[in-house]
Amino acid sequence: MQQIDIAIVGYGTVGNAVAKILEEEKQLLTQKAGYKINLKKVYTRNWNKHFKYPLKENQKAKSLEEILNDQDIKIVVELTGGIDFPLELFKKCILKKKHIVTANKALLAEKGKEIFQLAEQNNIRIGFEAAVAGGIPIIRALREGLVANKIKNIYGILNGTTNFILTKMYTEKKAFNEVLKEAQEKGYAEADPTLDINGIDAAHKIAILASLAFGGFLDFSNVYTEGINGIEKLDIELGKELGYTLKLLAIAKSHNDEVEVRVHPTFLPQSNPLSSVNGVFNAVLIEGNHVGETMFYGKGAGGEPTASAVISDIVDIGKSIVLNTGRNIEITSMNWKHKDLSLKKVEDFYTRYYIRFTVPDVIGILSKIATVFAKYEISIAAVIQKEKVIELYDKSIEKTVPLVILTHTASENNIQKAIKDIENQKLTKSKTIIIRVEDPE
Amino acid sequence: MQQIDIAIVGYGTVGNAVAKILEEEKQLLTQKAGYKINLKKVYTRNWNKHFKYPLKENQKAKSLEEILNDQDIKIVVELTGGIDFPLELFKKCILKKKHIVTANKALLAEKGKEIFQLAEQNNIRIGFEAAVAGGIPIIRALREGLVANKIKNIYGILNGTTNFILTKMYTEKKAFNEVLKEAQEKGYAEADPTLDINGIDAAHKIAILASLAFGGFLDFSNVYTEGINGIEKLDIELGKELGYTLKLLAIAKSHNDEVEVRVHPTFLPQSNPLSSVNGVFNAVLIEGNHVGETMFYGKGAGGEPTASAVISDIVDIGKSIVLNTGRNIEITSMNWKHKDLSLKKVEDFYTRYYIRFTVPDVIGILSKIATVFAKYEISIAAVIQKEKVIELYDKSIEKTVPLVILTHTASENNIQKAIKDIENQKLTKSKTIIIRVEDPE
Repeated sequence: MQQIDIAIVGYGTVGNAVAKILEEEKQLLTQKAGYKINLKKVYTRNWNKHFKYPLKENQKAKSLEEILNDQDIKIVVELTGGIDFPLELFKKCILKKKHIVTANKALLAEKGKEIFQLAEQNNIRIGFEAAVAGGIPIIRALREGLVANKIKNIYGILNGTTNFILTKMYTEKKAFNEVLKEAQEKGYAEADPTLDINGIDAAHKIAILASLAFGGFLDFSNVYTEGINGIEKLDIELGKELGYTLKLLAIAKSHNDEVEVRVHPTFLPQSNPLSSVNGVFNAVLIEGNHVGETMFYGKGAGGEPTASAVISDIVDIGKSIVLNTGRNIEITSMNWKHKDLSLKKVEDFYTRYYIRFTVPDVIGILSKIATVFAKYEISIAAVIQKEKVIELYDKSIEKTVPLVILTHTASENNIQKAIKDIENQKLTKSKTIIIRVEDPE
Repeated sequence: MQQIDIAIVGYGTVGNAVAKILEEEKQLLTQKAGYKINLKKVYTRNWNKHFKYPLKENQKAKSLEEILNDQDIKIVVELTGGIDFPLELFKKCILKKKHIVTANKALLAEKGKEIFQLAEQNNIRIGFEAAVAGGIPIIRALREGLVANKIKNIYGILNGTTNFILTKMYTEKKAFNEVLKEAQEKGYAEADPTLDINGIDAAHKIAILASLAFGGFLDFSNVYTEGINGIEKLDIELGKELGYTLKLLAIAKSHNDEVEVRVHPTFLPQSNPLSSVNGVFNAVLIEGNHVGETMFYGKGAGGEPTASAVISDIVDIGKSIVLNTGRNIEITSMNWKHKDLSLKKVEDFYTRYYIRFTVPDVIGILSKIATVFAKYEISIAAVIQKEKVIELYDKSIEKTVPLVILTHTASENNIQKAIKDIENQKLTKSKTIIIRVEDPE
């Protein structure tokens, strides 16, 4: 029986889980794949660390070159994180004709065009099932299972840390900082959770899905991203009262000539299936023009779920080597055309809005604010009166009350103008809170 | 650019949708696949029917032989339904070296062993993504995406008609017959909905998933199947009170040497993600030993969702022809070992139970029933008292009240013995209602 030699670069939580599963499920994998997968070498910069899953001495590479120069190694699994180091590694692997499997969403989202074009020129395949939504086989679903569809919309809960925090805030009425601390203690949030909290991690993932779904590269630096820091429990409570759950939602929509890609805290109707995706779970809802609405749900992070995805790519690429298929027509590239996608600008977004003003407790304010909304052609769907919400309200802003307006679909541009107008008129006494609402009318 | 000629046999709703999408999405599919798909011929026994999607005259085959003898046609899409005719067609296609794509779950569940063995001997691939859960790419997920996992459990809502009926009964408190009639009028249920209602359709689908997940063939005639006819709205209401939703659940579990496969009405806790799968939607929850819990959700039937799955298989098989991969190691066969799976017997099932007795309205009955339960080592988790439930109760059984017992995990064998004992003691006045509960303790 044929054997495919592979190597892992980066031996953290996911690397350890990949090694463990390759060893423990050796028989199962050989049966399913039809050939043997042999973990020949592992490289890490720090062999002195304690490892959950121990390796044989001869599996430990002393240098990266030991792997790159080993012609038997056909697949390199990159699990290092960051951008500069893995980018160099990818280039070296590609020139050495080694296929790559990666979980590195940052690298693919920010340097995808460079990497995929170089890979394609060299007939090298890059497997990245593990880069988006961990164990959920969403890349395969999008590329193969839904191949007959034009993808219209993608909505994803793609970051487990922020979903854990928002779920806790919703169910236990706790404040952001309190829950973040709890998440760090439980290991659900990193010591430095910046990329999770500020939405960048989710933005990396939705950028990859958008590229794949809409067939082109996009300029990641222009993807609109807003995180969950600053979210107050008052707004989560008020949203609940209106029938909404707050999620850090990653959204990709296809328009005629443009694509709309954005990540921000979003109110979803409680009846939306994504509303009940709780804790560290991830989910992706995809709308195709023929299949309709489909949803994929599972663990988006963690050693074993991510390793499950990494191994599915190893098996797949290994198979193409064994079968000698040469270049697997479309699979090298993230997409089938090397076009650049045009990103819709923030000010051109159309959606619904939840807006909370902090207003003086005097008669006539609502009418003044409503007048401004009318001026900018923003239609109001609901208003929450002050009386209901005083319980959780910040008492330090004296003699004010919160006033919440839920709009019908409006343009971001008009919303921003209206709020500026209202603030210029000094109708508000504190920062206006704006949360977008995804709720088709 | 290379072209793959295909043919469709059977030109109903799904066939029309396949032809339509192949034509309308020609450009997209060619870009994604890397080769052209050409619908060369279609065969149906009745060309006089009205078709939603019209064909060119030269696409209409006058006989099946016209397709079978055409050496250019590499893939035959079987969309006829039934068992005998497609079985013969499959055999002929395999001997003529034509690959097959099918949506026929009955055929695969009942004759899978014969078909897949013959196909494998002849290096023929059979695509059956459309046979289970329509547009949801569950076959691909199970075979490729989750390849690194031993599958522990599968729970599926696999029949849209019955899920539509149960959803309506739950939300609108209507009776079974009333909702069935409505479903037929709306086209959500066939004129003859027998295979849906009695659970056979769901059983066909879970049998296919179990074969794939657990790697072996199983004897379909021994799969335990119970339908939803006879479900009373009273039990749906009582379940709701206890925190459960009633679903026609298809279950496959892996034990050491045996597999447990069963389809029956099942109470699920309202917090289970499958509980909120409503209407004609399907969902499949899979537990793998590494990936944990994943769920896949979408439309399980209908022309376009099913056609979306059919076309994903055409693209995939076409690609293996273009790339000349020869036999795609594991993909021909439903599983990788030609072993027979051993099915757990009904009496050996262990689960929780909802049991409704119809008892005389006298003191002491509960204590007598509880004594019998204790004798058979069945532990009671909850009891619903008669007072709460009288509203929906069948008034014709005079001077009786319903008594509901929810058990902890118990063996089917002991449950059946206990009920027999209770009925022999004439403690009940009408048929005992038994509904299994899936709720891990």
